[in-house]
Amino acid sequence: MKATIHSICPNARIVDITHLIEKFDIRMGAFILASSVKYFPAGTVHVAVVDPGVGSERRPLVIETKRAVLIGPDNGLLIPAAEQLGMLHAYELRNADMMRRTVSATFHGRDIFAPAAAYIASGARLVESGPEIQDYVRATFSSPRLERNAIACEVFYVDGFGNVITNISETDLTKLGLHVGSRIGISVGGKKFSSRIVNTYSDLKREELGVLVSSHGFVEIAMKEKSAAKRLRVRSGRAVRVSGVRDHH
Amino acid sequence: MKATIHSICPNARIVDITHLIEKFDIRMGAFILASSVKYFPAGTVHVAVVDPGVGSERRPLVIETKRAVLIGPDNGLLIPAAEQLGMLHAYELRNADMMRRTVSATFHGRDIFAPAAAYIASGARLVESGPEIQDYVRATFSSPRLERNAIACEVFYVDGFGNVITNISETDLTKLGLHVGSRIGISVGGKKFSSRIVNTYSDLKREELGVLVSSHGFVEIAMKEKSAAKRLRVRSGRAVRVSGVRDHH
Amino acid sequence: MKATIHSICPNARIVDITHLIEKFDIRMGAFILASSVKYFPAGTVHVAVVDPGVGSERRPLVIETKRAVLIGPDNGLLIPAAEQLGMLHAYELRNADMMRRTVSATFHGRDIFAPAAAYIASGARLVESGPEIQDYVRATFSSPRLERNAIACEVFYVDGFGNVITNISETDLTKLGLHVGSRIGISVGGKKFSSRIVNTYSDLKREELGVLVSSHGFVEIAMKEKSAAKRLRVRSGRAVRVSGVRDHH
Repeated sequence: MKATIHSICPNARIVDITHLIEKFDIRMGAFILASSVKYFPAGTVHVAVVDPGVGSERRPLVIETKRAVLIGPDNGLLIPAAEQLGMLHAYELRNADMMRRTVSATFHGRDIFAPAAAYIASGARLVESGPEIQDYVRATFSSPRLERNAIACEVFYVDGFGNVITNISETDLTKLGLHVGSRIGISVGGKKFSSRIVNTYSDLKREELGVLVSSHGFVEIAMKEKSAAKRLRVRSGRAVRVSGVRDHH
Repeated sequence: MKATIHSICPNARIVDITHLIEKFDIRMGAFILASSVKYFPAGTVHVAVVDPGVGSERRPLVIETKRAVLIGPDNGLLIPAAEQLGMLHAYELRNADMMRRTVSATFHGRDIFAPAAAYIASGARLVESGPEIQDYVRATFSSPRLERNAIACEVFYVDGFGNVITNISETDLTKLGLHVGSRIGISVGGKKFSSRIVNTYSDLKREELGVLVSSHGFVEIAMKEKSAAKRLRVRSGRAVRVSGVRDHH
Repeated sequence: MKATIHSICPNARIVDITHLIEKFDIRMGAFILASSVKYFPAGTVHVAVVDPGVGSERRPLVIETKRAVLIGPDNGLLIPAAEQLGMLHAYELRNADMMRRTVSATFHGRDIFAPAAAYIASGARLVESGPEIQDYVRATFSSPRLERNAIACEVFYVDGFGNVITNISETDLTKLGLHVGSRIGISVGGKKFSSRIVNTYSDLKREELGVLVSSHGFVEIAMKEKSAAKRLRVRSGRAVRVSGVRDHH
């Protein structure tokens, strides 16, 4: 893909966000992309490929946002990032002049998405990619369910340290009256764990489970120099329940 | 290696093809290099290092092709790529002015190959590298053996998804009268599997084995969102037999 | 981090040294950084992050050396590299204009270190980072203990091939009268192995343990196309004893 980009746009500066998305996990890809795009310079062209439907009828997409361009398969992968950046138009990429002359059935990253990105980075106009469409695949992240003293949420992502990133926002915590220092109960599949809200990893004691606001802006369950995912036995997609614990004075 | 390159040629644009070649597997390195070089811009200087003989008598090579320059150990690694690009001359790299002043016995990538690449990218002439040689180590890929209704082939490469890339070309399939939709038998170490030729992964049913033309241009055995290598229990170098299955109407 | 850098300093050329440091292993990070910095062009700005204390009271550091700038946490990570490059001044990074406007509690790489590097690469003066300090965390590598006919040393680092890099320097070997061809005894946790000093991996026989000067400049224990770390059952931090073996003629 990078060779293709440099062949078309020799001065492109290419940055890898990650190559560690779990295979075929569109949601994990969408989460990481949405978490990353706002840090890039305005005008960046993003190419993202998590593409189990490569070579089938699924369409290639070019999305124009207020701040950047997103290119990839029409399977929901790009949508949360596009919404972050202020979505304007979605085009079905059909223009063969923006692809490699020969398109393989199994590697559209190299043959369709990367060339289109390179042509666009070199000045091709987005409206030339193909017809504007409205019926692209919508994928949005699930929302946590707020109850009286608890939040039923889902694991979005487990990072390389075993930190468990949920779909709870900082605001959700505040709504429940929880803040740094609050004691927290965590339930996963019938098992209960006790925890507390902290600012950062080093505020935790060895073996203690902590709840904190992650650098992605969502609530994260973590341990000090250990994997919280292993301790809780969770991975992406798992349901988790976080509840405030009333102190009995 | 990249630090060395930037120290000599500050404006070099460096692209990593892969760091996932199996250790000491010269053939896998040669396959990936040969599959990748044609996508790079003309004039690219390629450095490849899979080098079990580092520090021994094995020579460092600079190869001039019609389209690009290849630099690496004289162990066959560069030859299939050189043939892809139109091989012109092979030079034994002897010119100490194109290396680091101190050359370690175990890291020629940093001390010999990367500096030579950087000097060449900065304008050094290839004939200055050293004497032209003819007796470089030839390594070519094995060819599949075509029989009446079958092809005896070998596994070239297993990719990160567990897709099994063989040394069968698309033309070989056509010679046997096989095409998309044909039913195919696969034999590995006495075990038989049934399969069919498809265009892409998503044409397969769950758990079905498919045969398709890979993005490398060779025939690939694959499953839908699963590892075909695990199912067939094969890895690079394994003998595989692919045969047409006559329908009995 | 790269997105942040390009947002501030669009023409930065970014090189990854490694992402394979073991989590929280400051010493391994310090070793690799110290082994790498001298190969980079003068004027390079290095960012290194192995940071178990992120978000706590541990300070962010900017270090000026004769040859380059080093940025990272004040936990010892930068010091061996700084000493390699000729340490001049250490500044506590306090200037909020050299950071992201919002600083998370868990990702200072993105919010503090990378922006500071980008501002410095764009021309910001080092003295603007914050007050000069003397009481930064000193971390130096342990020294091997030379005995009459042996060296008690420690494993610094195990590389991807399973080569075991110790803290013994080439000079230490010479002091014991050892040279290429000398027979060597290796003791680890009561177990004894026989070995000999060689120039490079390919001088070894299959299954033989060799001792050689690594490309990092330290003494390394290695096998031919095999993992010496697995054979010796050692990892970073393990005590090892290397002794000359007198030949009985």
